[in-house]
Amino acid sequence: MADMNRFESIPFTEVRIDDAFWNDRLRINREVSIPYQYEQCLKTGRIDAFRLQWKPGLGEPPHIFWDSDVAKWIEAASYCHAVQPDPELEKLLDETAALVASAQQPDGYINTHFTQVEKENRWMNLRDNHELYCAGHLIEAGVVHFQATGKRTLLDAVCRYADYIDSVLGREAGKKRGYCGHEEIELALVRLYHVTGERRYLNLSRYFIDERGTEPFYFELEVKVRTWGSLSYYQAHLPVREQATAIGHAVRAVYLYCAMTDLAGELSDPTLLRACERIWDNLCGKRMYITGGIGNLKQNEGFTHDYDLPNETAYCETCASVALIMWNQRLLQLDCDGRYADVLERTLYNALPAGVSLDGKRFFYENPLSSRGVHHRQIWFGCACCPSNLSRLFASLGNYIFSRNSDELTVHLYVQSSTIRQKVAGASIRLALETHYPWEGRVQLMIEVDRETDFTLRLRIPGWCRSHQIRIREKLIKPPLEKGYALIRRKWQSGDIVEIDFEMPVERMKSNPAVSFNHGRVALQRGPIVYAVEDADLEASAWDIILPENSNLQARWDANLLGGVTVIEGSALVPVQPHVNDDLYQKETRPQFIVTPFRAIPYCVWDNRQAGAMSVWIKDQK
Amino acid sequence: MADMNRFESIPFTEVRIDDAFWNDRLRINREVSIPYQYEQCLKTGRIDAFRLQWKPGLGEPPHIFWDSDVAKWIEAASYCHAVQPDPELEKLLDETAALVASAQQPDGYINTHFTQVEKENRWMNLRDNHELYCAGHLIEAGVVHFQATGKRTLLDAVCRYADYIDSVLGREAGKKRGYCGHEEIELALVRLYHVTGERRYLNLSRYFIDERGTEPFYFELEVKVRTWGSLSYYQAHLPVREQATAIGHAVRAVYLYCAMTDLAGELSDPTLLRACERIWDNLCGKRMYITGGIGNLKQNEGFTHDYDLPNETAYCETCASVALIMWNQRLLQLDCDGRYADVLERTLYNALPAGVSLDGKRFFYENPLSSRGVHHRQIWFGCACCPSNLSRLFASLGNYIFSRNSDELTVHLYVQSSTIRQKVAGASIRLALETHYPWEGRVQLMIEVDRETDFTLRLRIPGWCRSHQIRIREKLIKPPLEKGYALIRRKWQSGDIVEIDFEMPVERMKSNPAVSFNHGRVALQRGPIVYAVEDADLEASAWDIILPENSNLQARWDANLLGGVTVIEGSALVPVQPHVNDDLYQKETRPQFIVTPFRAIPYCVWDNRQAGAMSVWIKDQK
Repeated sequence: MADMNRFESIPFTEVRIDDAFWNDRLRINREVSIPYQYEQCLKTGRIDAFRLQWKPGLGEPPHIFWDSDVAKWIEAASYCHAVQPDPELEKLLDETAALVASAQQPDGYINTHFTQVEKENRWMNLRDNHELYCAGHLIEAGVVHFQATGKRTLLDAVCRYADYIDSVLGREAGKKRGYCGHEEIELALVRLYHVTGERRYLNLSRYFIDERGTEPFYFELEVKVRTWGSLSYYQAHLPVREQATAIGHAVRAVYLYCAMTDLAGELSDPTLLRACERIWDNLCGKRMYITGGIGNLKQNEGFTHDYDLPNETAYCETCASVALIMWNQRLLQLDCDGRYADVLERTLYNALPAGVSLDGKRFFYENPLSSRGVHHRQIWFGCACCPSNLSRLFASLGNYIFSRNSDELTVHLYVQSSTIRQKVAGASIRLALETHYPWEGRVQLMIEVDRETDFTLRLRIPGWCRSHQIRIREKLIKPPLEKGYALIRRKWQSGDIVEIDFEMPVERMKSNPAVSFNHGRVALQRGPIVYAVEDADLEASAWDIILPENSNLQARWDANLLGGVTVIEGSALVPVQPHVNDDLYQKETRPQFIVTPFRAIPYCVWDNRQAGAMSVWIKDQK
Repeated sequence: MADMNRFESIPFTEVRIDDAFWNDRLRINREVSIPYQYEQCLKTGRIDAFRLQWKPGLGEPPHIFWDSDVAKWIEAASYCHAVQPDPELEKLLDETAALVASAQQPDGYINTHFTQVEKENRWMNLRDNHELYCAGHLIEAGVVHFQATGKRTLLDAVCRYADYIDSVLGREAGKKRGYCGHEEIELALVRLYHVTGERRYLNLSRYFIDERGTEPFYFELEVKVRTWGSLSYYQAHLPVREQATAIGHAVRAVYLYCAMTDLAGELSDPTLLRACERIWDNLCGKRMYITGGIGNLKQNEGFTHDYDLPNETAYCETCASVALIMWNQRLLQLDCDGRYADVLERTLYNALPAGVSLDGKRFFYENPLSSRGVHHRQIWFGCACCPSNLSRLFASLGNYIFSRNSDELTVHLYVQSSTIRQKVAGASIRLALETHYPWEGRVQLMIEVDRETDFTLRLRIPGWCRSHQIRIREKLIKPPLEKGYALIRRKWQSGDIVEIDFEMPVERMKSNPAVSFNHGRVALQRGPIVYAVEDADLEASAWDIILPENSNLQARWDANLLGGVTVIEGSALVPVQPHVNDDLYQKETRPQFIVTPFRAIPYCVWDNRQAGAMSVWIKDQK
């Protein structure tokens, strides 16, 4: 793995975001969504489940995945507190962390369902029961609560829990040789290793990864008769190093790939990284929507076959968007290749933020690319994995912008923000980025150094950008490019300003013809933003509108629309009579068209007005 | 139900087929497919399972649905023997029927799986275990074996079995109040009632229909915890009279609708018929492929939502085509409305015959409308429901052509054939139909009467036909039309010849725009035949080819191609370079096109040459 450019992310605690696209999103996440999610967890019994007072007859029993909802809330709220300390929030966090820890059994086990509802079934069905999945989220919660507050209540509890899990599962005699049907604990254990330095946790993660998909298959041994579910649904059909396609349940899959990437780095294991690269090529080259959403099929919440990307039934679970961002972030730290940042950015500005309403109180589980007007965000879900997952990503957004290593600084995302001082090449360096990105392509990067220093600044040139200019102190420069990054090596002085202009025209995008669903259709993209047409902006239906090749399209900033967005406007055609009658099939006729005003809005803000049809892929011909 | 035109089908035993389209299909079905299917049943243990010699350790245990494969083979072979007596086949049939009957338990039960493999689970899981489904097919086999041979061995056995089932299931005290998770027995019991006159069988069928979907739901009471499957998958979410959409598993659903239609007629129950009509409107108006295939989703082998008709992943199980033909035939006898015959014909000439190779030895389970060249017929299946289902439909094709009532004769399908003498309006009448349909639109119908007789001849004017002429003794007539049928009432004399000319141009068909998958695409149809492009006929790929609106297309009979078919030929366009590179999404460019020879073949004969791409819906624009 010597040929790679390895970096570490500058953590969100060292980055201050002040950005036109993100400020409202992050404020509403903190002020509305996170308190709202706590209320929902309280109201639905998820919090009180940890009091271990449930008895048959006493209302709804704790579900097998409830613990993870509370854990992700702790993680999200801890990030918020770390970014912007809030004594009230800290109090609630500490209480909740203590409540979770209080549910720990003498042997270290924590699980509200299997402690109260099905005591006899602990570890009996690793495939379906989500015990290790919940454990993973509890571990992440303990790690982040400690990082945000310095308090060890929950961290110590999850360490004891991880120790207990290590005593139950593994290759040694007397242990169950299993692994989880919903991957998550693998990446959580790496985080626990990072914060504790305890190598046993890394080894346990490695065991889960190495054991997965080996024969005899644990999931086949575990229960004799199954009524549903193939091994590939759980990515357990082949040893992970032999897997080559994104397969099965999307969130499970990408959480696994996250841990594989973590371990590839921690253990310098090129076989794991090669598997990740193969799978990435398949997933991002043949199975990803233009919005960066993944997982095309509702029925398995996951993948089917290459280029099977229907729009109206696109599943694109919000959690899968979170997972795809997490994975590409990990790949990017191991190998600073712009293709990973391009996918990360695509999902971050499109599929992911679509997952929450602008008011922060309604959420999408599924993020289709077209709708007849019947798909809307909901206030909560029985299986409520998505809201808190999205919130923890938003709350830790600062993690994704910059990286560093001993003598380089890297800019991955053009979010207006600044870092605290970083030690690089023996100097103390601070970056401050000013921009109206993604609405404008101009970026200014101010560099402060405590003394004149020779180091490399690595600036991502987004894959969507076909022309850019870079100036330092107003002088045009042509730095070399490496894997999608411009490398500017010079003696930096305080007051150096790098100005970058990314050309950002409205672009008509086509699919690879292998995607049959998008034939005769065009999508609009400008910068990283993918657009959609929505009935609320049109005199015709978004379902019928046609955007011919020669349409004149203009981008226009509208501060008053949907929290401030750049819209794309022009004119389009609609058939006078879309179909002769209601027949499902009928003889071709030559329709008449009329001209109609056209407006497209960013996909990420759709369904924030009255209900109506929506489409990302717009007809470009009759 | 007074406003309907009720008829009874002229049975296949009274019809002799001699038709250009069907002769080879029916001969190969009889000479190749049916013996081949017996061999497969023998080789895989399905036949010997009835010897009740299986013990743990003795090879593969009988599956829960194996009995139905043997039963459908008996049914198909019995039809063949009835049409064309064959002593050798009769011997094999009698042996097999005796073998099945020999497996009957003292209480009347017949089931190779639950007698040998899971004795303790008889009637324990009606939802998933297919016991009543297998019973239904055994009953049909008993009925048809008796009709074909006059022998009661199997008929008596299935009567005892039905009596036993009647003693176990029902509303009376001490009975299980259940019904089958895979409908089939309901329609079989109506057939058993017809052949035996025993009204208890009709009542049992009625019980199954009436009980279905009522609360408390039997399937929820039956087993406490289910890992998969919603009630609607089994059409058991609502009482059948309240159902309004085609829902769940397609074959289950349409077998149910068959029985509902049977009972609507037998019991003169308009509430059942209204439910069927509502469901039919939904299924055939919003959920059916242009090939007449149904069931769009692989994961539930069934339906999703209106207009969700993707092509490459179209499931269109061959069994569902059989079921759709059976259902429309039943509706057509209750209410002689051409819309039912139109759907029946669409499926019969397109989706159904595609299910078997021209050599009769390979079968499709799934019948997609496009393929990248990787979907091929198979020699057999673990779940082998389709081959024998298709064979029994082919072998009884004669049932679908003519109907009669006390003073009318009706022609539904233009298959070259003749009837034996029918008693109508007090006379003895014989019909003989001469045609090269579906390849040509000219039909001659010869009428023989034993004396000059006044009766109505009802001739279907196919829904696809926009212009037709009818002549009697060379004189043009304009008979009144009723629900898609021309009514010719006159004093018929022997030697009367009705000549019909259906105009049969090549037509470019479009989908309702609500079907997003077919945007920018056209399908070709001529008469009832739906066409497809296949790589074997093209210099370019069927996936890339474009058929502009102004293409000049000609139909040409080719006696030497694929057993003799009419092809559609002309020229088309292909892009010089379909995509700039392999990127999944990229900026629109203006492609260059070249002209290329075009040929389309009937969909029903695709995948009978070298592997390659195929598509029914052809791009009509870049």
